[in-house]
Amino acid sequence: MSSLSKDIVKFNSHTAARDKIFRAVQYGSRFILWQLTYGSKDVQGDVILKLQKLEAALGLSRKLFRLGNSIDLAHKAVDALSIPDTATMLLAFTSHSMKGIWLLMDHFLWFGKVGVLKLDLPFWTQWSLRAWLISMATATISGMLKIQRADNKLAKYQKENGQDAKIPGPLKAEMRLSRLNFWRDLCDLFIPMGGLGYASPGFTALCGFISSLIGFHQEWERHIKPYTPSA
Amino acid sequence: MSSLSKDIVKFNSHTAARDKIFRAVQYGSRFILWQLTYGSKDVQGDVILKLQKLEAALGLSRKLFRLGNSIDLAHKAVDALSIPDTATMLLAFTSHSMKGIWLLMDHFLWFGKVGVLKLDLPFWTQWSLRAWLISMATATISGMLKIQRADNKLAKYQKENGQDAKIPGPLKAEMRLSRLNFWRDLCDLFIPMGGLGYASPGFTALCGFISSLIGFHQEWERHIKPYTPSA
Repeated sequence: MSSLSKDIVKFNSHTAARDKIFRAVQYGSRFILWQLTYGSKDVQGDVILKLQKLEAALGLSRKLFRLGNSIDLAHKAVDALSIPDTATMLLAFTSHSMKGIWLLMDHFLWFGKVGVLKLDLPFWTQWSLRAWLISMATATISGMLKIQRADNKLAKYQKENGQDAKIPGPLKAEMRLSRLNFWRDLCDLFIPMGGLGYASPGFTALCGFISSLIGFHQEWERHIKPYTPSA
Repeated sequence: MSSLSKDIVKFNSHTAARDKIFRAVQYGSRFILWQLTYGSKDVQGDVILKLQKLEAALGLSRKLFRLGNSIDLAHKAVDALSIPDTATMLLAFTSHSMKGIWLLMDHFLWFGKVGVLKLDLPFWTQWSLRAWLISMATATISGMLKIQRADNKLAKYQKENGQDAKIPGPLKAEMRLSRLNFWRDLCDLFIPMGGLGYASPGFTALCGFISSLIGFHQEWERHIKPYTPSA
């Protein structure tokens, strides 16, 4: 057996990792749908119908396998309270707790969509999107602060050791992580914006596709091949 | 935060672990449905409709999150070929490869059920159930052999050290594992049997519920609290 296929099995055993693949396909389908129909309901066809079914099925199943993640976010929100820097603490707490609230509403939406609970779906969808929007906006700002902090560290290091000094591995890793997280959160910001009608659905789908690829890459590094800064 | 809720988060991050919870709810719903309707389509009601929707949604989503598991089974089948004992090797190889074939058909059935592929659903469902049945039958026989082997080891140990000698931890663990696996596989055997019409749907659902609970327990031990034989 090739080591790649063993890696795929290992990667696949983690829910978040598997979810990233389905998420990329979901937003990818949505983007292709937009290209085919330009958002008009008059354009119809077999491929369009199949893509719509695929996107809906992926979205609904991902909701199920997210059940319980709100507990995880509650933990993260509580942990954030012990961050010493006030601005970072407030941003992280808001981001995690709002994401937790979004997920909690999302759990109920799953029961509503499946037909087990009777819910005013459009109403609760709007509120869940608002919570998600706040979560992603604070995460993006928090991400900018982290990039700035890493860049300041680099400037300080280069001042002390000269411009051509080799950047230490941990600092390199920190700079890379802060940038990846920032771009992922920025892309994700457009998904609730699109859902609330503040951004074009086609652009939103593209952003969702890109953030899924970044997330996939990060999960791959977490479980299969950890990032090692080159010397 | 309580350590239990941290354990839940950790447990939840594994796809197989999460799947066991959904599986228990799926077969539990099916069992309650059977109790409410006795398999008759004439009995109708709000609770029945909701349980039917819940069961269908869980089944379909679990199919999606099983995508790719057939690769895992192909690995296991190839690994089984290196087992020295011929009978065990043949049983393990048949069980893993048939389960892999069942899953492969199951992947296609997902695309068919979602509406992306046009398939003869009843035809492929029958064939997938047959492969699953062979897989579970060989797994159950293999499980009986493993119980026998562990019992033989115990008898040999007690002959050498006396009837009242303390059973060593690894042997205790082996005896326990072989029994848990056997009961889980035996219960699972009735699911394809039920699907093919060889067993009552109500009994099948109860078996599926029990095997899910055993599987849940095993996943919990794997990821959260490993089993330690008492002294």
